[in-house]
Amino acid sequence: MSDKYQQRRFDIYGYEKIDTEVLEAIPYEYPEKNTVVEYITEEFSSVCPWTGLPDTAKLTIRYIPHQKLVELKSLKYYLTSYRNVGILQEHAVNRILDDLVKLLEPKFMEVIGEFHERGGISTKVVARYEK
Amino acid sequence: MSDKYQQRRFDIYGYEKIDTEVLEAIPYEYPEKNTVVEYITEEFSSVCPWTGLPDTAKLTIRYIPHQKLVELKSLKYYLTSYRNVGILQEHAVNRILDDLVKLLEPKFMEVIGEFHERGGISTKVVARYEK
Amino acid sequence: MSDKYQQRRFDIYGYEKIDTEVLEAIPYEYPEKNTVVEYITEEFSSVCPWTGLPDTAKLTIRYIPHQKLVELKSLKYYLTSYRNVGILQEHAVNRILDDLVKLLEPKFMEVIGEFHERGGISTKVVARYEK
Amino acid sequence: MSDKYQQRRFDIYGYEKIDTEVLEAIPYEYPEKNTVVEYITEEFSSVCPWTGLPDTAKLTIRYIPHQKLVELKSLKYYLTSYRNVGILQEHAVNRILDDLVKLLEPKFMEVIGEFHERGGISTKVVARYEK
Amino acid sequence: MSDKYQQRRFDIYGYEKIDTEVLEAIPYEYPEKNTVVEYITEEFSSVCPWTGLPDTAKLTIRYIPHQKLVELKSLKYYLTSYRNVGILQEHAVNRILDDLVKLLEPKFMEVIGEFHERGGISTKVVARYEK
Amino acid sequence: MSDKYQQRRFDIYGYEKIDTEVLEAIPYEYPEKNTVVEYITEEFSSVCPWTGLPDTAKLTIRYIPHQKLVELKSLKYYLTSYRNVGILQEHAVNRILDDLVKLLEPKFMEVIGEFHERGGISTKVVARYEK
Amino acid sequence: MSDKYQQRRFDIYGYEKIDTEVLEAIPYEYPEKNTVVEYITEEFSSVCPWTGLPDTAKLTIRYIPHQKLVELKSLKYYLTSYRNVGILQEHAVNRILDDLVKLLEPKFMEVIGEFHERGGISTKVVARYEK
Amino acid sequence: MSDKYQQRRFDIYGYEKIDTEVLEAIPYEYPEKNTVVEYITEEFSSVCPWTGLPDTAKLTIRYIPHQKLVELKSLKYYLTSYRNVGILQEHAVNRILDDLVKLLEPKFMEVIGEFHERGGISTKVVARYEK
Amino acid sequence: MSDKYQQRRFDIYGYEKIDTEVLEAIPYEYPEKNTVVEYITEEFSSVCPWTGLPDTAKLTIRYIPHQKLVELKSLKYYLTSYRNVGILQEHAVNRILDDLVKLLEPKFMEVIGEFHERGGISTKVVARYEK
Amino acid sequence: MSDKYQQRRFDIYGYEKIDTEVLEAIPYEYPEKNTVVEYITEEFSSVCPWTGLPDTAKLTIRYIPHQKLVELKSLKYYLTSYRNVGILQEHAVNRILDDLVKLLEPKFMEVIGEFHERGGISTKVVARYEK
Ligand SMILES: [Ca+2]
Ligand SMILES: [Ca+2]
Ligand SMILES: [Ca+2]
Ligand SMILES: [Ca+2]
Ligand SMILES: [Ca+2]
Ligand SMILES: [Ca+2]
Ligand SMILES: [Ca+2]
Ligand SMILES: [Ca+2]
Ligand SMILES: [Ca+2]
Ligand SMILES: [Ca+2]
Ligand SMILES: [Ca+2]
Ligand SMILES: [Ca+2]
Ligand SMILES: [Ca+2]
Ligand SMILES: [Ca+2]
Ligand SMILES: [Ca+2]
Ligand SMILES: [Ca+2]
Repeated sequence: MSDKYQQRRFDIYGYEKIDTEVLEAIPYEYPEKNTVVEYITEEFSSVCPWTGLPDTAKLTIRYIPHQKLVELKSLKYYLTSYRNVGILQEHAVNRILDDLVKLLEPKFMEVIGEFHERGGISTKVVARYEK
Repeated sequence: MSDKYQQRRFDIYGYEKIDTEVLEAIPYEYPEKNTVVEYITEEFSSVCPWTGLPDTAKLTIRYIPHQKLVELKSLKYYLTSYRNVGILQEHAVNRILDDLVKLLEPKFMEVIGEFHERGGISTKVVARYEK
Repeated sequence: MSDKYQQRRFDIYGYEKIDTEVLEAIPYEYPEKNTVVEYITEEFSSVCPWTGLPDTAKLTIRYIPHQKLVELKSLKYYLTSYRNVGILQEHAVNRILDDLVKLLEPKFMEVIGEFHERGGISTKVVARYEK
Repeated sequence: MSDKYQQRRFDIYGYEKIDTEVLEAIPYEYPEKNTVVEYITEEFSSVCPWTGLPDTAKLTIRYIPHQKLVELKSLKYYLTSYRNVGILQEHAVNRILDDLVKLLEPKFMEVIGEFHERGGISTKVVARYEK
Repeated sequence: MSDKYQQRRFDIYGYEKIDTEVLEAIPYEYPEKNTVVEYITEEFSSVCPWTGLPDTAKLTIRYIPHQKLVELKSLKYYLTSYRNVGILQEHAVNRILDDLVKLLEPKFMEVIGEFHERGGISTKVVARYEK
Repeated sequence: MSDKYQQRRFDIYGYEKIDTEVLEAIPYEYPEKNTVVEYITEEFSSVCPWTGLPDTAKLTIRYIPHQKLVELKSLKYYLTSYRNVGILQEHAVNRILDDLVKLLEPKFMEVIGEFHERGGISTKVVARYEK
Repeated sequence: MSDKYQQRRFDIYGYEKIDTEVLEAIPYEYPEKNTVVEYITEEFSSVCPWTGLPDTAKLTIRYIPHQKLVELKSLKYYLTSYRNVGILQEHAVNRILDDLVKLLEPKFMEVIGEFHERGGISTKVVARYEK
Repeated sequence: MSDKYQQRRFDIYGYEKIDTEVLEAIPYEYPEKNTVVEYITEEFSSVCPWTGLPDTAKLTIRYIPHQKLVELKSLKYYLTSYRNVGILQEHAVNRILDDLVKLLEPKFMEVIGEFHERGGISTKVVARYEK
Repeated sequence: MSDKYQQRRFDIYGYEKIDTEVLEAIPYEYPEKNTVVEYITEEFSSVCPWTGLPDTAKLTIRYIPHQKLVELKSLKYYLTSYRNVGILQEHAVNRILDDLVKLLEPKFMEVIGEFHERGGISTKVVARYEK
Repeated sequence: MSDKYQQRRFDIYGYEKIDTEVLEAIPYEYPEKNTVVEYITEEFSSVCPWTGLPDTAKLTIRYIPHQKLVELKSLKYYLTSYRNVGILQEHAVNRILDDLVKLLEPKFMEVIGEFHERGGISTKVVARYEK
């Protein structure tokens, strides 16, 4: 039986398909305040680097903006670009943090991925940046 | 700004990528009973046929088997094959019903798709087969 | 104190602002099946015909399509057109039912409005059409 | 100790304080449809006829209007008039049903009172009218 | 170790401690209506007839009164009288039904006991009377 | 990597380890009533017949006893005997139904197994017996 | 299809429609205490500055009053005045904070907006003022 | 229409009806420990000082007793005495704190009122005392 | 009516029925770690010292063991021994803390009792021990 | 009756069946960050060392990785190896912590076991490691 499934391995894209260039910042009008901004989606998805089977997660991006906000539609396209990329859950969360810190230069940022269970085990990853 | 996003339209596969051949039935030992069997996944996903953006859904498959059960791993691969297919939500649910009725010849089957909101509106589709 | 608020009565639009013309149907590929389709939004809003203060509701539209589905984006624009219209809650739900029955000629349709409380009382309205 | 509390018995009003006259009907524009209308409040209150201590309840009024709707503000004043009236929980629910049936002549009406617990026991009463 | 616990077997009262005499009915003013009345307590308790260890349950008493309601305080004392009585869960629920049917002569009555788990298994019992 | 896991296949017992003999009935005192009795455990467990990995389920046993109740401790030992038995989920639920119907000769019985997800898919099985 | 929707762009008001003048303070009788006061509404609404489509949010206003409380009805009219104003979510929350700090001169204030999802992403904004 | 409601203004009692004298303390046997004691009721009620319409709240009283506990029945009568008193929500919570601090001389006390929404806005007030 | 209930006062046991002797400690293998252990039961029960009516509570016992754990069955018998003892809720929680601290000599212990409502008021008590 | 159950004591494996060798680490690409990683399963199971009856638990493993992550499939096989091992709940949690700390040399690790109730008492154990 396993032969059948091995022939059917799904396409797995490499890291180069992560579309950091689509990301766009917009000016923030209250840079002197310590405002906390949070984006939440229940629909983040990438694939397992070994089997190509999807990993799905609730993703939370929390930050204190300095002079820039991320444009929401560009964020959606950026996150959607992970959809067929093979990447470990722990690494995906850290990569998103790094890309957004580079774009926004915030005072603080935290990215949280809560991945649906695999083999009866679910995984939560919390990566953090402080200036 | 919209130009940027139009250049980035994601690949959209046609219906021919729906992998009905991976589906496999196994014999059911209690054909004379009216047992109800239900499979539930919160991770079904296809894409919008116009934009290529993902649609995600909770999917419920409920049936009264006659002489066959669906093999669970083959069901997972079948459902995963919709991942990059462009298909309307109402049509995806009916297509899954048709494929599984053909495979299993059950006494009764119902497929329910509960799709996450788009534009503030979520969609639920219930398709039903009775012998 | 009440003088101040009476001077501030908000604009109240008439029924002619309900945009039935934006509604658009698309062909349904499974007319012979009794499939149940349901759209849910938690963001419906109209205004009280006397005070102009907003009424907000969770709206559920449930139907068995015959040959037509409503195009989802056109539904969103139609519902948004109630935003500044002065209309009683019980009448809004029936009006939506009538407009969609005329557009889709479904086998069955039910519209449910669950309005947030006013004066400590919340209101639910269920209007139904059967061929 | 009990002496102190017996001296403090609260005022208990009689049934004559139930303000049926404040109730007002408004015309309903869809008398031919079997629309279900429901009003819910979590703040109904009357008092125990023996001790004067408050009874509080969630109250649901569900009906199929014929030619009249109850005006919502008049309903609020009517319900508030029970606030210091001494009446058994089972009787209060039936009394509200009778008053509203007389006012509205509906096709169907049901009144449900879900009273908070007394002595560790909570009470639910469902009274029903059918034409 | 078990010796220690066997010496400590708690007192177990017999059925004669069930205080049916405390129960009291009061006249119901709406005998012609089919009103449903329900009493719910999360604090019912009796003991296991073999070990004397407590069984605790959520108890629901639902009935359509004819000419009598049970006085609520008398019901509380009646239910409390089971506290140290050794009785099987399935039998306790039926006994309560029988005692209340005799007292109230209702049109319908249902008693539901939902007992906390023992050995990882919880038990629900639904006993019913119809005239 | 898979070699390592294939060497570690867990012991899988056959159906002969299902301990039907431990089951014990006790007399029911209310055979003329149609009382519904329900046992619920969140801790049922068997193993996959191919991999030996555990399947865990919430199990509900609902029946209308005629002259016998199942003794609760014997039920616990019976259910625990599945712990290392390799059996398909759909078959386990039907087998439990058959064993208990033979023991208790009830008027009605229903066994429901709600199995935790495997590969993102959870399974519910409802098997039913009517005299 | 998009032409149709572009013709239907909704009216978008500018910031000058935000009605700060309706806001009214009332004296607070306990200025020496550090009392925390919180107002919560699930019905805040403004519109997207680019499309005119509504953004809806749960809004929480938490503060430690010094000598003034905001009059609740004036707060309702103030918040309702955002209903057709085009303003970014992050800016709306900061603007409300600024207007209320100017009015009330509190010891502390925090405004939290939890906006419904757009494109599958919901947004939370927490703005804070400390003396 | 408003005339009718203005004639029906409910009786509004003054602060002198708040029954501080019914409050009674009982000795606490563990004064040297920092034990936290909390009383919660979902049934607190007073009336709006301008309209006489009821305000209802969940009330939490949390304290670290020194040498006295409040007698629970006296607390119930004290809280019930607010039932027809006209008092602002923010002031009611502070008044309860002051009365109980005077009675009990605790090491710490906090009173929290969570009032049901009025005009779509609910209010929470947290008042605190520290020795 | 009250005479009837006064004749029926339930037996109330004194503090001497609290069975501290049944409590048993077992050695803990990880004394050098600061492990937190917590036992939770929803079935604690004692009686009111004045009326003999039952008080029921959720009880949480949280501690950092040093060299001893409490044997779980002995804890169950100890807690069950309160079942007919007349004791104030605040005192029961402190007494349990004192008995277990004496037995186990832990690094830290906290006992929390959350008692069901009486007269519409529920009570929570948190008693704490630190070495 | 107890004789029957004593003959049926289940097999209880010793600590030597805990399969620490199956555990496998994989390199972590972000060692300089303080990322928190958490694995959660609701299906952990071991057996009581005295009766052989199963103990089931929700298990949470939370850590800050330094240079290694645990490979998820090897973790699943490691946890499954406890399935028939007789071990006290408090000791199982500490043993898992020790095995994983040795494998991963993390900056911080916490293991939490929340065991289903036995005799009406559920147990939670939190063991912690800090470098
Ligand atoms: Ca992984
Ligand atoms: Ca799950
Ligand atoms: Ca669609
Ligand atoms: Ca209205
Ligand atoms: Ca509300
Ligand atoms: Ca009563
Ligand atoms: Ca039993
Ligand atoms: Ca439980
Ligand atoms: Ca299977
Ligand atoms: Ca935005
Ligand atoms: Ca949503
Ligand atoms: Ca106010
Ligand atoms: Ca007390
Ligand atoms: Ca309660
Ligand atoms: Ca143990
Ligand atoms: Ca449980």
